[in-house]
Amino acid sequence: MSKVKGNCLVAQSGGPTAVINASACGVIQQALKSDLIERVCGAYNGILGVLREELFDIGAEEAETIEMLKTTPSSALGSCRHKLKKLEDNRADYERVLEVFKAHNIRYFFYAGGNDSMDTASKIKDLSAQLGYEMIVMGVPKTVDNDLAFTDHCPGYGSVAKFIATSVMEAGRDTESLYTFDTCAVLETMGRNAGWIAAAAALARRYEEDSPHLVYVPEVSFSKEKFVEDVKRVHADYGRCFIAASEGMRWDDGSYVAHDTSVLAKDSFGHTQLGGVAQVLKKIIEDELGLKTRWMMQGLTQRNSMHFASRTDRDEAWLCGAEAVRQAVSGTSGYMVSLERVSNSPYQVQTGLAKLEDVANGEKKLPRAWMNEEGNFPTAEFLDYARPLIEGEVEVPIAGGLPLFMRFKKSWLPKKCKEYQVG
Amino acid sequence: MSKVKGNCLVAQSGGPTAVINASACGVIQQALKSDLIERVCGAYNGILGVLREELFDIGAEEAETIEMLKTTPSSALGSCRHKLKKLEDNRADYERVLEVFKAHNIRYFFYAGGNDSMDTASKIKDLSAQLGYEMIVMGVPKTVDNDLAFTDHCPGYGSVAKFIATSVMEAGRDTESLYTFDTCAVLETMGRNAGWIAAAAALARRYEEDSPHLVYVPEVSFSKEKFVEDVKRVHADYGRCFIAASEGMRWDDGSYVAHDTSVLAKDSFGHTQLGGVAQVLKKIIEDELGLKTRWMMQGLTQRNSMHFASRTDRDEAWLCGAEAVRQAVSGTSGYMVSLERVSNSPYQVQTGLAKLEDVANGEKKLPRAWMNEEGNFPTAEFLDYARPLIEGEVEVPIAGGLPLFMRFKKSWLPKKCKEYQVG
Repeated sequence: MSKVKGNCLVAQSGGPTAVINASACGVIQQALKSDLIERVCGAYNGILGVLREELFDIGAEEAETIEMLKTTPSSALGSCRHKLKKLEDNRADYERVLEVFKAHNIRYFFYAGGNDSMDTASKIKDLSAQLGYEMIVMGVPKTVDNDLAFTDHCPGYGSVAKFIATSVMEAGRDTESLYTFDTCAVLETMGRNAGWIAAAAALARRYEEDSPHLVYVPEVSFSKEKFVEDVKRVHADYGRCFIAASEGMRWDDGSYVAHDTSVLAKDSFGHTQLGGVAQVLKKIIEDELGLKTRWMMQGLTQRNSMHFASRTDRDEAWLCGAEAVRQAVSGTSGYMVSLERVSNSPYQVQTGLAKLEDVANGEKKLPRAWMNEEGNFPTAEFLDYARPLIEGEVEVPIAGGLPLFMRFKKSWLPKKCKEYQVG
Repeated sequence: MSKVKGNCLVAQSGGPTAVINASACGVIQQALKSDLIERVCGAYNGILGVLREELFDIGAEEAETIEMLKTTPSSALGSCRHKLKKLEDNRADYERVLEVFKAHNIRYFFYAGGNDSMDTASKIKDLSAQLGYEMIVMGVPKTVDNDLAFTDHCPGYGSVAKFIATSVMEAGRDTESLYTFDTCAVLETMGRNAGWIAAAAALARRYEEDSPHLVYVPEVSFSKEKFVEDVKRVHADYGRCFIAASEGMRWDDGSYVAHDTSVLAKDSFGHTQLGGVAQVLKKIIEDELGLKTRWMMQGLTQRNSMHFASRTDRDEAWLCGAEAVRQAVSGTSGYMVSLERVSNSPYQVQTGLAKLEDVANGEKKLPRAWMNEEGNFPTAEFLDYARPLIEGEVEVPIAGGLPLFMRFKKSWLPKKCKEYQVG
């Protein structure tokens, strides 16, 4: 492919992470250095910002603001959960995207997100080719869930893993203080379909008596009887029981253990928003074993925990962004940058490339073999995989005892297209 | 009072904090330096460890282990919620305590805890005087709730305040990423009777658009209608609404907003264990305004958040412990060490003394005047009070990306008394 010259657009999509801004930073800092890229633009709220033509000039931001993306959690560009329908069902939206791209001479599109976002990016690339609009589309991996296929792991995961493991260590010490009867605790983690986050809790257990004692993931169907047995045994052995449980845990029949199934608890993709697993487990323990149980549901804090993010994760997030630009300006298009583990000890990774449509259609669950036979704790193999990902700390600027985060001032680009009604 | 020579006992009580071990460290390191104190002992699980004669020799621990108390959360000595009944109703327990003290020549007793613990300490002092057993009893303040009377603030509070404010900053950025409709969030904090912890969330709000936008505390009775109005207005102004709410919030009639009132949800003092306020508020927002709402309940993690503890809090916790010993060896008895604010800018504190029985019977709520007239956000006066308490960070030893905490090896002292059945 011949080299393309023009403007670039960076956008973020899906649930935020502690380090998705570090990826944006990698894209932006690398793009600002490229001779082929003239203006670096941001789309406000992902693909929605493109459809609405809400674009701003990132080159107009201070270099320091851009640098602080490395230590600011969540989506500084704004995110969305807007998934474009199939090209044949919704050609208008894709044509609108191309209309906006043409109007602003966007020749490079960098989309950071999960598999839904890679799907969107892939389709934009297809239509641009169909319409003969020369442009480069690159994906940047992002998800706390670590469920993206075709990459060893995903930026965002290392930081949530580190935070969850630290939380378990700290809350675990609380159950260890041995109240009269305050000895069980359940910490609920994110992870709708994949148990990667809950499994990371196991990193907290350096010694046998350490928390967590039990870990439950969606990949192993949940049995109440087995669970009661597990807790009873652990409590007999250690005088307490600390449990990490994924929000996505399911009963034998495939239904979610979480009981929150109200209508508003569905997101715009129709995914059920979960929550409540911890309370279900608490009730089982109290009803069946009479052991008082505490529970925790850290919600949005876990995926934005920049104050104790993984340095490895943060640096890899930046690298994926920068590499997407390096690949793009050398003519690569239609790929997501992936991470390939070269060796585990010492830990070494290199970037690779995965086809957008492959990533879009893939999903990587926690391998069943990485949970023990009983299905209640991750294996040593999982721990070896996860340990390097939480290494290192990020120095976050602090003022008055609290982190300092950036916001873009957002110099909006003048609109050049007609209004468009987003469906 | 003449100077007493003998052994000392340190014990911890009540809910753990990130820095109660720093207080124990202050007691231990100061006691080890004193000529009047021969052996430094620890009671396992507070006053329960005394009743059961489960005592260990802290002098036999490595100096490094003792030093690491400064960076280990929760109660390393073990804690309890065992409150001794009135002296006239339960003389046997108090006599048992004195029996154990005499058997081990305990002449100095340092009890770290809240007002229930100060009550226990006060009664032990009274009985020792009655029985003519010469000993010194000193209290060391501890509570995340910050509700102890006769002290400007309480070790433990600064660290939970810092963690809650940081969590609100981070999760707040998530709601800011402007999903299609994922724009409200409720973070539930601890605080059964006092709103200090929830109020600390307000520290996160550096700019008007920052989270949290609304803060609810037990000191202001909760009105559903007013709440719906508040959220509606905030959502209209900012396109999102982030709420911090105390678990102890009450309706007009004094009943708790939290709906978890099952029998097992009471602790051994008969206090109701709360939790569920966030879900109640979520339901109100979704039912009345149709705005999708996320919620978080950080439970035990908030009071053990050593990984981002306040340096000020940690250092003051150590100071209170050390000062208790300095006072004790100079003959002071029957007091809790308090913190007195000398000036706010620059922030300066000095230690003071508060009578154990005064602290035992006191409770310090958030002043109503420190919430705005509407009762939905703390005032500047509260913020000025709280800001210095979260200043500074603690350098926690880290290995493999996770904190390293200590455990005592516990060299048990041989039992010298008969078995005793704890009631």
